[in-house]
Amino acid sequence: MREVAIVGIGQTKFGELWDTSFRELMVEAGVRALEDAELDGREIEAMYIGNMSAGQFIQQEHIASLIADHAGLTPAPCTRVEAACASGGLALRQAFISVASGIHDMVIAAGIEKMTDVLATQATDALATAADQEWEVYVGTTFPGLYALMARRHMYKYGTTEEQMAQVAVKNHRNAQFNPCAQYRKEISVENVLNSQMVTDPLKVLDCSPVTDGAACTVLAPAEKAKEYTDTPIKITGLGQASDTLSLHDRQSLTELRSTLVASSTAYKMAGIGPEDMDLAEVHDSFTIAEIMAVEDLGFCKKGEGGKMAEEGETDVNGRIPVNPSGGLKGKGHPVGATGVAQAVEAVTQLRGESGKRQVEGAERGLIHNVGGSGGTCVVHILERGD
Amino acid sequence: MREVAIVGIGQTKFGELWDTSFRELMVEAGVRALEDAELDGREIEAMYIGNMSAGQFIQQEHIASLIADHAGLTPAPCTRVEAACASGGLALRQAFISVASGIHDMVIAAGIEKMTDVLATQATDALATAADQEWEVYVGTTFPGLYALMARRHMYKYGTTEEQMAQVAVKNHRNAQFNPCAQYRKEISVENVLNSQMVTDPLKVLDCSPVTDGAACTVLAPAEKAKEYTDTPIKITGLGQASDTLSLHDRQSLTELRSTLVASSTAYKMAGIGPEDMDLAEVHDSFTIAEIMAVEDLGFCKKGEGGKMAEEGETDVNGRIPVNPSGGLKGKGHPVGATGVAQAVEAVTQLRGESGKRQVEGAERGLIHNVGGSGGTCVVHILERGD
Repeated sequence: MREVAIVGIGQTKFGELWDTSFRELMVEAGVRALEDAELDGREIEAMYIGNMSAGQFIQQEHIASLIADHAGLTPAPCTRVEAACASGGLALRQAFISVASGIHDMVIAAGIEKMTDVLATQATDALATAADQEWEVYVGTTFPGLYALMARRHMYKYGTTEEQMAQVAVKNHRNAQFNPCAQYRKEISVENVLNSQMVTDPLKVLDCSPVTDGAACTVLAPAEKAKEYTDTPIKITGLGQASDTLSLHDRQSLTELRSTLVASSTAYKMAGIGPEDMDLAEVHDSFTIAEIMAVEDLGFCKKGEGGKMAEEGETDVNGRIPVNPSGGLKGKGHPVGATGVAQAVEAVTQLRGESGKRQVEGAERGLIHNVGGSGGTCVVHILERGD
Repeated sequence: MREVAIVGIGQTKFGELWDTSFRELMVEAGVRALEDAELDGREIEAMYIGNMSAGQFIQQEHIASLIADHAGLTPAPCTRVEAACASGGLALRQAFISVASGIHDMVIAAGIEKMTDVLATQATDALATAADQEWEVYVGTTFPGLYALMARRHMYKYGTTEEQMAQVAVKNHRNAQFNPCAQYRKEISVENVLNSQMVTDPLKVLDCSPVTDGAACTVLAPAEKAKEYTDTPIKITGLGQASDTLSLHDRQSLTELRSTLVASSTAYKMAGIGPEDMDLAEVHDSFTIAEIMAVEDLGFCKKGEGGKMAEEGETDVNGRIPVNPSGGLKGKGHPVGATGVAQAVEAVTQLRGESGKRQVEGAERGLIHNVGGSGGTCVVHILERGD
């Protein structure tokens, strides 16, 4: 396989973007990525698009054709990939594999979701289709409910507290205020989180990532050509993807995601480095408990100590292992199909040293971690500055 | 890139399968493919699943996890790909690329659609989401309407007749009667087609492919390992994918699909052979006019002569270039996400010489052609018996 690097990045502002259509969002992110790489669109040989459910959110399937069309990139092959909230990570993975294989050189990996064109209750219903219809959704479970079950069990087994979960949200909002693309750019306090409206006990509304519109885009190239497009190509040196049962009740444990364990160990092995070598991580904090479990499952601390890490500031931008310097899904927003690609955009920005007030000093290696549903899919990539 | 071969195939019966659930269909096709390759599921390293819209048909996204789960294949990575009716072809393509790259050895490419759990009108609406919502669907266009526009223009420009279109349906029903998996196993006459109910002038109901449940599965392996699993590995020697505008009105021509032209020329070039070298083709006859345009765009005759080919029997099983010996989408049925993979299943069966009464004598090379929407996506593969 050939080595592969990211040479261009772009994303839209994340938020409730009622004035911008699905097709406009994707073009905006794509144009920014092409401009970043100083690349003519005609050089693009293929595209992979992560999107969870345009079919339910805007009554449009076949978005790959729509996007190739509106980006002016026909007849280049364009393929949508989907695994709920891990769709963006899958797009990055397929783009990597296609460049690594040699079938294409310049390939786009993008992600998009337009979620606010439906009522909030409809958005919740659409998101619930990422859980098992027959065993979970039919009995009324939604995603906050599934993650609340995991949170309760984590609290019972490891003594994790609601305050520790709140610390995750506080940190991610603190980081998001310095991210110009973030949906929420204001600080919150532990008290704000604890006093916010209960969604599913013990998760309050400020423990949950929001409903968001947005798109993100990266351009991948063979590593040997990368310097033609950027002074600081960022190599993808490890990748892993794993599946798990769709239903929570089929799992052996409620306090770890097996898909994260398998995907990350595959990625670490491929890259030849481990969690101790990472300078930062963007992890899938769809709920605060999800970030706590992720830092454990990714090997940044022992199992059960994720809450303590948040409490002690170890995951702060200047901490031992900065987690979600972008603001994460919680602060930056979570347009589900775009999230995995937006994580790559943040990691590349950090490894280039261009993150301004949220910059992790001297960052050379980063990990991104994207989860679908309650862990039925996980995708992990390791990115390294390749000077 | 490594050479890649198909070593196992399986599919369910196609039809209105009200007694079989989505998850059961996929497992049935998968088990047949594994048995065909005499392969243990634990050898499978990754899966790609083509599916257009489980979100709309059964309110279930994230089907990759569901399938890995119910097939007992977790934690292997599983990825859904979608481009409307071309979703199955995309799954085959991604599986090919992943084996060719060297990242995986044994990889499943499967496709599935469960379309009859909703009302027929809802199925039509769901299928319409493969067209452009803002420019086509909002003004009331459905797929029969879009293909009727192409048919009218083809009739005007080339003198194609309703009788010639009817001949396509007659041939495909004739072939389908010998396919044990086909939805319609009885012959029809030109008069039957011409006298059947008008859908959108000039397309009658017997010019249209049906609404179908079904799943199909293939197992891909590196060519150098293929003989461990089968005596007759079928190599994929060429592949091509192309996009076009989503809306019909944006195209330069209504009588050809640019995506077919580009995808097939890419595939021919890669395989180093041309249309004259093909022993059979499975093409995307979602409507009879679509097969007529396909045989032209794939280079089996001059532009405008597709109708005459059907009329003169050149596309019959014993004709100059047999087209849709399986019965095609018209006779075999069209579970949209499964179709592209089912085309591969038929081509492999033919190239192995195991097609019984619909066997194309001495077939050694075949082409499969899968279209999304009205041509916004096209995927072509060339398969060769590699003794």
